[in-house]
Amino acid sequence: MIRLFIPHDLAAGGELALDPGQSRYLATVMRLAVGDELLAFNGRDGEWRVRITAVTRRAVAVRAEAPVRPQTVGPDLDLIVALVKRGRVETIVEKAAELGARRVRLVTTERTNADRTRVDRLTAIAIEAAEQTGRLDVPEILDPVKLEVLIGGWEPGRQLLFCDEAGDAPPILQGLTPPSRGEGEGEPWAILIGPEGGFSPSERRTLRALPYAIPVSLGPRILRADTAAIAALTLWQATLGDWTPKGAP
Amino acid sequence: MIRLFIPHDLAAGGELALDPGQSRYLATVMRLAVGDELLAFNGRDGEWRVRITAVTRRAVAVRAEAPVRPQTVGPDLDLIVALVKRGRVETIVEKAAELGARRVRLVTTERTNADRTRVDRLTAIAIEAAEQTGRLDVPEILDPVKLEVLIGGWEPGRQLLFCDEAGDAPPILQGLTPPSRGEGEGEPWAILIGPEGGFSPSERRTLRALPYAIPVSLGPRILRADTAAIAALTLWQATLGDWTPKGAP
Repeated sequence: MIRLFIPHDLAAGGELALDPGQSRYLATVMRLAVGDELLAFNGRDGEWRVRITAVTRRAVAVRAEAPVRPQTVGPDLDLIVALVKRGRVETIVEKAAELGARRVRLVTTERTNADRTRVDRLTAIAIEAAEQTGRLDVPEILDPVKLEVLIGGWEPGRQLLFCDEAGDAPPILQGLTPPSRGEGEGEPWAILIGPEGGFSPSERRTLRALPYAIPVSLGPRILRADTAAIAALTLWQATLGDWTPKGAP
Repeated sequence: MIRLFIPHDLAAGGELALDPGQSRYLATVMRLAVGDELLAFNGRDGEWRVRITAVTRRAVAVRAEAPVRPQTVGPDLDLIVALVKRGRVETIVEKAAELGARRVRLVTTERTNADRTRVDRLTAIAIEAAEQTGRLDVPEILDPVKLEVLIGGWEPGRQLLFCDEAGDAPPILQGLTPPSRGEGEGEPWAILIGPEGGFSPSERRTLRALPYAIPVSLGPRILRADTAAIAALTLWQATLGDWTPKGAP
């Protein structure tokens, strides 16, 4: 069944007019008609079964019929990525949504040569990926900031998995598994992925000196930024995140 | 430094004519000239420093000067993927090269609607990714076969990590970690990723009944085929593969 993120409040009986893009998608692309059902979520009210009540050339209206799943919230995990080429940033945002990151923070570093991106476009990609992956919220995409600004405003208590491609950091699984990290379950975390050219030596020194940073290595081969981001998100979810049901060994 | 995969034998002093594509890349795109150095590997003779000895309009010639790294071979890991949309198959091949798979086997299943692909194009993608990631071989890309043919010709002793999206399989990390799998280090493995529509119920029954198959789950969200492939390769390398130096805890 089609799943849509819609910004409106979802409550039984409410009738909602969808925006032009979603209306066109439902009526013209998917050829849905009055009476057809779909699923909707807004990041606050859980997932609802909604039914199409009107289709005009300009807009589709739906009515929320019944709640399907209560709202849940995934782990408090930020993905911090240096601005890389547009296509790779888009892949990273799509995968961050599939892999359950709560936020994507874009940073510029000494070796990034871009300082802006289309956050609205990245948000649209995050929404589409959230719709397809089945999550009940959409990861927030934040405007790019300089690495030193990000560090300067670091939230107390958030741990930082620093993916350090320079090679002498311990294997990532060691940085994520008990006993060193076993107590961290439920705590806020962030994963940091550098630009294709890597962090500069002075950036690496700064990052390694942060008391909340855990430098880790992602194996013996050079990974592109999107591969590194997916790999680190996966290992975090599989060890500390929601890939292991609570109470499982 | 530029790294190239070249099919020729690499030995000191040998002079080698590069193919037209690589010649154009070096001379026209990268504007290298006689005397410039690059790195070369062929999957057999390790990595060599080679020097350009001639640049004509038609071809670049190089001479192998000195070995840089001896040939090594990564873990014996196959990635088996159902044929999905072209762009996603290409991503999967690129990532399989970065993540150290030795082979990519393409399969058709009940729910794949394609039965052919451009293996030559996928091989070119694998070569480029191998050049960039620093490995000393190129993953082999095999022609698509039907799932039952693949199973019928299964190599004795190769274990199969069956990524089963149906949801009741144990978490992947459980399927990969000691004590259940600790003795498997160095053994041949394969990872199986289904098509976007999943395996059919009868395919799942067949796969789950294979004595060498370990069904595992990739978390609570629906992953696209490329994300699932990257996630499974990452977890395999981090637990049983070459991401943890031998002898490390």
